[in-house]
Amino acid sequence: MSDSEWSVELARELYGLNNYMRQEFIDVDDEGFLVVKVNGYRARLLDLMKKFGLSNAYVRVLPAIRWAMDQVVRAYLETSEEAQYRGRLIPVYPLKVDANPVVVETIWRHGRRYNWGFEVGTLQELKSIEKYLSEETGVLVVDGFKTSEELEALKKHAERGWRVILTIESEREAELAGRFLDSIEVGVRLKPMTRTGSKWSFTMGFASKFGMTLNHLMMMVKDFPFLKKALTTIHVHGGSQITDIKAVARLAHEAVSILEDLRELGFENLNVIDLGGGLAYPYLDLRDGSHESPNYTVRDYFKAVLSAFRKSKRHPDLVFENGRIITSAHRIVVAKVLETREYGPEEYEESLDLDFIERAKDMKELERSLVEFREVLAKMEGKEEWGIRAKHIIETTRARMINSVVSKVMRMVLDNPLELSEVLKYPTLFKIVTSPSKRFIVSYSLFADIPDKTIVNQYFQVVPLTRLNEKPHVLASLSDLTCDSMGEYREYYSYVSRVYDKRQAFTGMDSRLMAVPGVKVKLGGIPLHLPSSGEDYYIAFLDTGAYQDMLAMKHNLIGEPPEIIIDESSEGELRVECLKCESKGYTDMKTAGQV
Amino acid sequence: MSDSEWSVELARELYGLNNYMRQEFIDVDDEGFLVVKVNGYRARLLDLMKKFGLSNAYVRVLPAIRWAMDQVVRAYLETSEEAQYRGRLIPVYPLKVDANPVVVETIWRHGRRYNWGFEVGTLQELKSIEKYLSEETGVLVVDGFKTSEELEALKKHAERGWRVILTIESEREAELAGRFLDSIEVGVRLKPMTRTGSKWSFTMGFASKFGMTLNHLMMMVKDFPFLKKALTTIHVHGGSQITDIKAVARLAHEAVSILEDLRELGFENLNVIDLGGGLAYPYLDLRDGSHESPNYTVRDYFKAVLSAFRKSKRHPDLVFENGRIITSAHRIVVAKVLETREYGPEEYEESLDLDFIERAKDMKELERSLVEFREVLAKMEGKEEWGIRAKHIIETTRARMINSVVSKVMRMVLDNPLELSEVLKYPTLFKIVTSPSKRFIVSYSLFADIPDKTIVNQYFQVVPLTRLNEKPHVLASLSDLTCDSMGEYREYYSYVSRVYDKRQAFTGMDSRLMAVPGVKVKLGGIPLHLPSSGEDYYIAFLDTGAYQDMLAMKHNLIGEPPEIIIDESSEGELRVECLKCESKGYTDMKTAGQV
Repeated sequence: MSDSEWSVELARELYGLNNYMRQEFIDVDDEGFLVVKVNGYRARLLDLMKKFGLSNAYVRVLPAIRWAMDQVVRAYLETSEEAQYRGRLIPVYPLKVDANPVVVETIWRHGRRYNWGFEVGTLQELKSIEKYLSEETGVLVVDGFKTSEELEALKKHAERGWRVILTIESEREAELAGRFLDSIEVGVRLKPMTRTGSKWSFTMGFASKFGMTLNHLMMMVKDFPFLKKALTTIHVHGGSQITDIKAVARLAHEAVSILEDLRELGFENLNVIDLGGGLAYPYLDLRDGSHESPNYTVRDYFKAVLSAFRKSKRHPDLVFENGRIITSAHRIVVAKVLETREYGPEEYEESLDLDFIERAKDMKELERSLVEFREVLAKMEGKEEWGIRAKHIIETTRARMINSVVSKVMRMVLDNPLELSEVLKYPTLFKIVTSPSKRFIVSYSLFADIPDKTIVNQYFQVVPLTRLNEKPHVLASLSDLTCDSMGEYREYYSYVSRVYDKRQAFTGMDSRLMAVPGVKVKLGGIPLHLPSSGEDYYIAFLDTGAYQDMLAMKHNLIGEPPEIIIDESSEGELRVECLKCESKGYTDMKTAGQV
Repeated sequence: MSDSEWSVELARELYGLNNYMRQEFIDVDDEGFLVVKVNGYRARLLDLMKKFGLSNAYVRVLPAIRWAMDQVVRAYLETSEEAQYRGRLIPVYPLKVDANPVVVETIWRHGRRYNWGFEVGTLQELKSIEKYLSEETGVLVVDGFKTSEELEALKKHAERGWRVILTIESEREAELAGRFLDSIEVGVRLKPMTRTGSKWSFTMGFASKFGMTLNHLMMMVKDFPFLKKALTTIHVHGGSQITDIKAVARLAHEAVSILEDLRELGFENLNVIDLGGGLAYPYLDLRDGSHESPNYTVRDYFKAVLSAFRKSKRHPDLVFENGRIITSAHRIVVAKVLETREYGPEEYEESLDLDFIERAKDMKELERSLVEFREVLAKMEGKEEWGIRAKHIIETTRARMINSVVSKVMRMVLDNPLELSEVLKYPTLFKIVTSPSKRFIVSYSLFADIPDKTIVNQYFQVVPLTRLNEKPHVLASLSDLTCDSMGEYREYYSYVSRVYDKRQAFTGMDSRLMAVPGVKVKLGGIPLHLPSSGEDYYIAFLDTGAYQDMLAMKHNLIGEPPEIIIDESSEGELRVECLKCESKGYTDMKTAGQV
């Protein structure tokens, strides 16, 4: 099946698949199937789902984690060489990002070659990695609230050879650290003044949960003078997912200035800066610095940081705590479309007069009359004493209005030399022509699978597993299986660089606008195909590998779906394993996909 | 310990303990301890925590669930008798509210006398109650996405005697229902036009996830004519936690009008209305109709609903799906304060000139100069090139400014005939004098214990377990043990009807304003006592019994704390059991508390 109005290249753009952190692993084949690629092998995600008989699953591509780790180390080596920077990279994996044993094992095994350590924030996290702590040695950064019990455990690991950096944030913790100076290093978390514009910025600043002010540190040093020698590390965190490289640079600059100033005040062993987890993951890779789309890459990040750090005479080492960039790409939520429903009814026996739509000479006139008409409609809906017939008319009118506007706008654009971007000038029109017409009932739980959608309104890229060589039919919202009205996903950022024919910008069946060439637009629904009867139509949520495992909720008792693990052995052999599946068993990648 | 500036009565008001849904169970004793009361027995929560050696726990007061169920049934019987209403109450428990086996067992056992049934939204929920379904019979309302597998299971239960009401929302589900008409009843969920102002209102309306339009139903009936006879129930849900009784009345009115109109159109067996779960729980019981505080009681709810329903000639039965009102009060999160930290440093060696604060003649002048000064400060913070000394000065200035303003305002109020409410006119002043001065590190996880705080910004009442006979010392924020900057709780709605001395309105140590008589005010921190060294100071989050078990997240691997279950046997004997505790074992209530 192909479509003269469409191309796989256009699909790659529309579905955000040209993404520097995952295009190595996820692609579309010529027949329009979404495929996972590892080491030259390819498997269609649809085939994997059908092979194991699943309607929903987490697909974990473990080599994506290892690839990201390699990218980080390579980027640091290259940028530090270019900048003649002498400080070392101290990579640690923060367990809070994903403590799933499969993930932690992958990072630990692969990380050995880089001496990749851990960051723990709670006693529970420390306990969860005990088998690794007793296996070899490395770097362990310890944040969060500390107790004597935890310090005793850390001391044992330190005596076995682990480099333990304990981050203190109060007098009590300074006192605690003072008792273990033989075995541990001390770091302090300071509140930066830099505002990074991160989605978490509102939790930063003077009144924020973490970190001490500089003044507080100075006061504390009077009571605990050993700190002057014991402090090796300062933590200056700017919040998660900082998407503007200028903010990264400012933060790095502030951090290194503090380090230099503290050295001058006698903190002579300070030589490590921990910048926390700000390196942004490209949930969308348009480089525009929006919450979803950082305006920089991993290499750019190191360039900005090291360029700031070079101002220090003794180039400090950098603790790299970014877990989001390491794990995000590895987990894909795949879910089947179980049913499709209409947004509006399709019979228009009775409705209010809508001729003004057809009569409108241009978009400006249409917008103006629409705004007025919608006010009238809203007033009618607000009346208490409607009967069933009035209700019927209001519903019909609303549905018919949407369809008439959509059809009118498409004709206006196609029959005239109008640019597609013209419609961006009219917010009411734009909202209507990018609204969903279908509700897809999908075999997933927003609360279990992509909880950050409800917590921080996180954006996740949606892609169908099939038909990527066909123009999408409709804009759809994705209802989950919970009985919660918030269990619905319908955000979509669309971007294509150009279209060959304006018709390509409209969906095939409901005539919605799904792209404006050269402009990033936010649609009210997701461009998808209307499954035919009996068709196995699945969608994927990409980049769910960071935090989503940890924040999963069991709303309506839905959760913990089967998992398809794609892994490579140390000999480079690939294998696919299904966990929590009825049809258990391993398979190799070659036979997994029928490519 | 007592305090001449304070009284237990004042504490009851300030900590929201005069609450119609829980004052039967939670109170303060004369010595200022928070106690749980059941059947005439009392236990101090502090004693329970110490008895089991816990720093955090969920205390479940199961009799509170039974009491709430009794209240609902009694309120219905009384209001329906008053209104001479002939329709029956069909109470069902929606498992999505809390599927914890202890809770479900309590509801099932106690509910038998009222024929209290279940509402299930997923196959997993249905499976979780299978043992009850095979035990006796009752009413089972089935929502959510349905499959043939689920219908087959339902058929079996129906044949055993369960009254199964299947809510359909699409043609596919109508077709499915058509195959099981021998054993099941059919309901349909319709989209109401009423806007209820609930926190979930944004998910309502024409484009909402659930329900069909009336037009859609009419079209469907043409394809599935059996529906005219099969439909017994309409669902008209207005969202969770509707806090305005007028909205409840409007919704009930709309529902009954639709029912009547549909009957006239030939749906002759329609005789049940399911209004969903809108009955609001008083997280705060000030009756002001705000998101936290419904302006009505359970009795008022039934009065409003039945008054609307009476317009129907055949008084319809009412499906009562409200789980929030049944379960909220039963679970109390108790957590120990592990450490206290300062917001600002306390040494003011260097700072910018703040004399303008002392010089201000009145609040108006102070407010104006503060607004200006804060702009200057914000600009200084925004500069990139500060050194450590500039940073030091900015931090000091900010901390000193807060303390000076707080002290100045207190003196202004106490030394003058000014009303406490005067400060409400000045937003910047008000914000500063109600800001927290301390950060309490508390043994809890916001994400595990009160997840709705992050999801819908839910308000939970905080109360200390002790010292309620002493005036609070400070306003504090409550940092949890996660390494997430969002893991902090500091909202507080304060209300007291009057004070005998204006001094009572200020905290004892940090001179923050904690109340304005007769006015509900939102503080930036929680009025608490500063624990002395070694003191066991705990706080409780009340009303966490609805949804919080289901939405719990395992952020930083923290979760599933020990549980203290307070229960009564069928003979009325009380007992206290500790689950997931190191020191296991039962105890009776009398020996549990040393009262």
